[in-house]
Amino acid sequence: MNFAGEHIISIEQFERSDIERIFEVADSMVPFALRARATRVLEGAILGNMFFEPSTRTRVSFGAAFNLLGGSVRETTGFKTSAIAKGESLYDSARVLSGYSDVICMRHPKEGSVAEFAKASRVPVLNGGDGANEHPSQALLDLYTIKNELASSGKRLDGLRIAMIGDLKFGRTVHSLSKLLCLFNNVHISLVSPQELAMPQLYVDQLRSSGHTVTCSSDLTSSIGNVDIVYSTRVQEERFSSPEEADLYRGRFRLNQSIYTKYCEPNTVIMHPLPRDSRADANELDSDLNQNPNLAIFRQADNGVLIRMALFAMVLDVVGKVEKYSHEVTWYSGRTR
Amino acid sequence: MNFAGEHIISIEQFERSDIERIFEVADSMVPFALRARATRVLEGAILGNMFFEPSTRTRVSFGAAFNLLGGSVRETTGFKTSAIAKGESLYDSARVLSGYSDVICMRHPKEGSVAEFAKASRVPVLNGGDGANEHPSQALLDLYTIKNELASSGKRLDGLRIAMIGDLKFGRTVHSLSKLLCLFNNVHISLVSPQELAMPQLYVDQLRSSGHTVTCSSDLTSSIGNVDIVYSTRVQEERFSSPEEADLYRGRFRLNQSIYTKYCEPNTVIMHPLPRDSRADANELDSDLNQNPNLAIFRQADNGVLIRMALFAMVLDVVGKVEKYSHEVTWYSGRTR
Amino acid sequence: MNFAGEHIISIEQFERSDIERIFEVADSMVPFALRARATRVLEGAILGNMFFEPSTRTRVSFGAAFNLLGGSVRETTGFKTSAIAKGESLYDSARVLSGYSDVICMRHPKEGSVAEFAKASRVPVLNGGDGANEHPSQALLDLYTIKNELASSGKRLDGLRIAMIGDLKFGRTVHSLSKLLCLFNNVHISLVSPQELAMPQLYVDQLRSSGHTVTCSSDLTSSIGNVDIVYSTRVQEERFSSPEEADLYRGRFRLNQSIYTKYCEPNTVIMHPLPRDSRADANELDSDLNQNPNLAIFRQADNGVLIRMALFAMVLDVVGKVEKYSHEVTWYSGRTR
Repeated sequence: MNFAGEHIISIEQFERSDIERIFEVADSMVPFALRARATRVLEGAILGNMFFEPSTRTRVSFGAAFNLLGGSVRETTGFKTSAIAKGESLYDSARVLSGYSDVICMRHPKEGSVAEFAKASRVPVLNGGDGANEHPSQALLDLYTIKNELASSGKRLDGLRIAMIGDLKFGRTVHSLSKLLCLFNNVHISLVSPQELAMPQLYVDQLRSSGHTVTCSSDLTSSIGNVDIVYSTRVQEERFSSPEEADLYRGRFRLNQSIYTKYCEPNTVIMHPLPRDSRADANELDSDLNQNPNLAIFRQADNGVLIRMALFAMVLDVVGKVEKYSHEVTWYSGRTR
Repeated sequence: MNFAGEHIISIEQFERSDIERIFEVADSMVPFALRARATRVLEGAILGNMFFEPSTRTRVSFGAAFNLLGGSVRETTGFKTSAIAKGESLYDSARVLSGYSDVICMRHPKEGSVAEFAKASRVPVLNGGDGANEHPSQALLDLYTIKNELASSGKRLDGLRIAMIGDLKFGRTVHSLSKLLCLFNNVHISLVSPQELAMPQLYVDQLRSSGHTVTCSSDLTSSIGNVDIVYSTRVQEERFSSPEEADLYRGRFRLNQSIYTKYCEPNTVIMHPLPRDSRADANELDSDLNQNPNLAIFRQADNGVLIRMALFAMVLDVVGKVEKYSHEVTWYSGRTR
Repeated sequence: MNFAGEHIISIEQFERSDIERIFEVADSMVPFALRARATRVLEGAILGNMFFEPSTRTRVSFGAAFNLLGGSVRETTGFKTSAIAKGESLYDSARVLSGYSDVICMRHPKEGSVAEFAKASRVPVLNGGDGANEHPSQALLDLYTIKNELASSGKRLDGLRIAMIGDLKFGRTVHSLSKLLCLFNNVHISLVSPQELAMPQLYVDQLRSSGHTVTCSSDLTSSIGNVDIVYSTRVQEERFSSPEEADLYRGRFRLNQSIYTKYCEPNTVIMHPLPRDSRADANELDSDLNQNPNLAIFRQADNGVLIRMALFAMVLDVVGKVEKYSHEVTWYSGRTR
């Protein structure tokens, strides 16, 4: 599929070949993200960046990706003053807002709301996160990062060995990543969490049905010794009934350089969906890892721009024109990856 | 008048020929709003989109209109943190902010504030709504919609038959529309509201002085039988002294498909300034009308972009250059009207 | 220095020749700020306009300056919902946000935060104000305004006579301006404030060590008689322990046209960092000065755009290309300085 004119709502709409195509398009965006070239392929197009729940970096990442393709961005943030709060239906909002733009990225606190909105929209809608439900561009950028990080050591997604660590109950990213991994072969997943924050059985079952190996543990050091990827997560304190309850789990699994050196294979890649909590009582990834070349967390964030550029280019059907409308970069850019 | 360099503050500044010229320019914007062509006629120009009161859709509509002409948008929303809250006069605000942009769209909670601001501004100012006072682009898009909807059945604004329904006391849009209708001939206006929310006598008198026929009623079904346009409105609950008082009137006049079929002439056009309140206790226009081809409410919202493009093009004097600076659209667009 | 790829964090990083170079570049931006020409030299570049503390006009001024060079702007305002509030370090924020843009302007409530952020950023960072500490573009635009206003009467910065008036204790702008003046020769500074709000001794000592003459007073009229520039400031009420304490000082030094005529030399230039407090109990610069051609406060605000354009052009190393990428302005512009 080329996804022209399609909505991107859920990772469940992708087959393995779709993922591979998205990653191929993302690869072709690298020169533009690195400012080796600029493109005006979407000059005149408007992104409606509709964030009915705040998320600075996801919002800015989508907006920057659209700007890098030459398009303009109109934005809204917040919910209280929106028409929806005055009793407007998602149907009406979608009919109206889709009249202002060529593509919409929407984040909304309510599960399922983006899909409902998309049904009434006259332009493609990208899900920027609907409550605890889906955040497909995050799952794609995570998998894209794993693929790229493994490539340098000649490994592939088939056969991947990964440890997922932390709040596996509320962490939306590990759920989505698990689903995506079901599209690949022979994956070994090591789940590390407090028992109370274990990965929901649904996802474990899906992984096993796909022929993958899943082990569960609440011990960090014994679980990170034979993996290619350590995927650490933050305790999602906003989902707990009280901050005090979150305090019970924060800081339970801390990775730092000496643990890494002692327990991990050389070149084990460290990932995190960010933000990482660097306060003393949490500190799941210590800052002494910042100089470790296998800390991939910022390359991971950078990859978000590539993935979002790819999705925009695909739903607006300009993949083949990006180069044609490209031009030289005039300004200083010391940027590297 | 061509309005080059002028402020657009009030519908009272328009004569009939002005309105007709604005609508003619709006018509010429259709290919650009539909993405048949794009234009960079305002490339390098900056809109200062100054919303000192929130209004997502008016703000985004103005911004999108400016982007569609090729310009850039700088925005502000909210009042509390503004310099005005630190004791700055509107005169100073206008002198400073007009130094940053080529045209300003301003919304402000205080009646008359936009006119005061415009006096000190060094660039044209468009009134995006000043409290309960004026919102000229809304009135223009309403009238433009009526004209367009009637055109398909060979009717004109002269001789129009319209029912205005709901909160006619606080509804700014019906006041402004009434004023504009005074510029035309032989209009029949049927006003439907609770007695307590009747159209202020001032507007009724103006309509009658213009030779129009005005009837008042508090019964829906007997008032919508012989009209070309049904213009429904939401109860403006934010203007009542208490939510409970607004509750008394909400849901009093509900139009749905079966009432429409039973009481309206075929092809009666349904309009609403939006947002419509779709909560069960209000629901002034039922969602079962969504498939009715005469429900014009989303075409009405779309027309806002055309009217705002026209106003920008006129005050910045580029109407004759839009085509010259146009270029092909590269991306997928399934957009229709 | 040409500052290509450099951060602009503090005025302490400038030598006199740097200042002169910045002013020269700012001069070259005048045709673009006046819309005699437009330029797309930064087409494709992205400014990350990160305001973790609100400041409408500084934010809009930076954004407009970047748009005038042809670039795009992604923005954030507010702090509460940011990742920093979830425990993210400034190091992480900088690594992530610098992946989205080509240059970052940052305002942050905490002193020193922008410098810390810049250390981890992969793109140049401009300090848009870090708490009570630094706001270098404001200091530069103040000095640039003084230079320009004096030029018409054949005077230069060397030999300048200036009165600084008002809250000299908390006013960041007078501190920074004092530091910059140390780079010039033979300046006479007259400081006028309530004793409790006197200029910190540190700055007075620096001025005197630079060979300048400094006098202190709490009487307005005797202090403004022999100066080229009267630099008035607002009482920074947000820095006092209570609004009541600020009330003690507000309105203590009021300049109006009759005082100006009676006590100032002809053509004494009036400046103010804005916003000026025009409420009756403050009113440090009366509105009857608005027609005085020597009231330079709005030219001063306009100069902010020129200085910010110059800084962007320098750190992105496009100064020599602005003209080459320029194009005609298509729209009406009645703009003058």
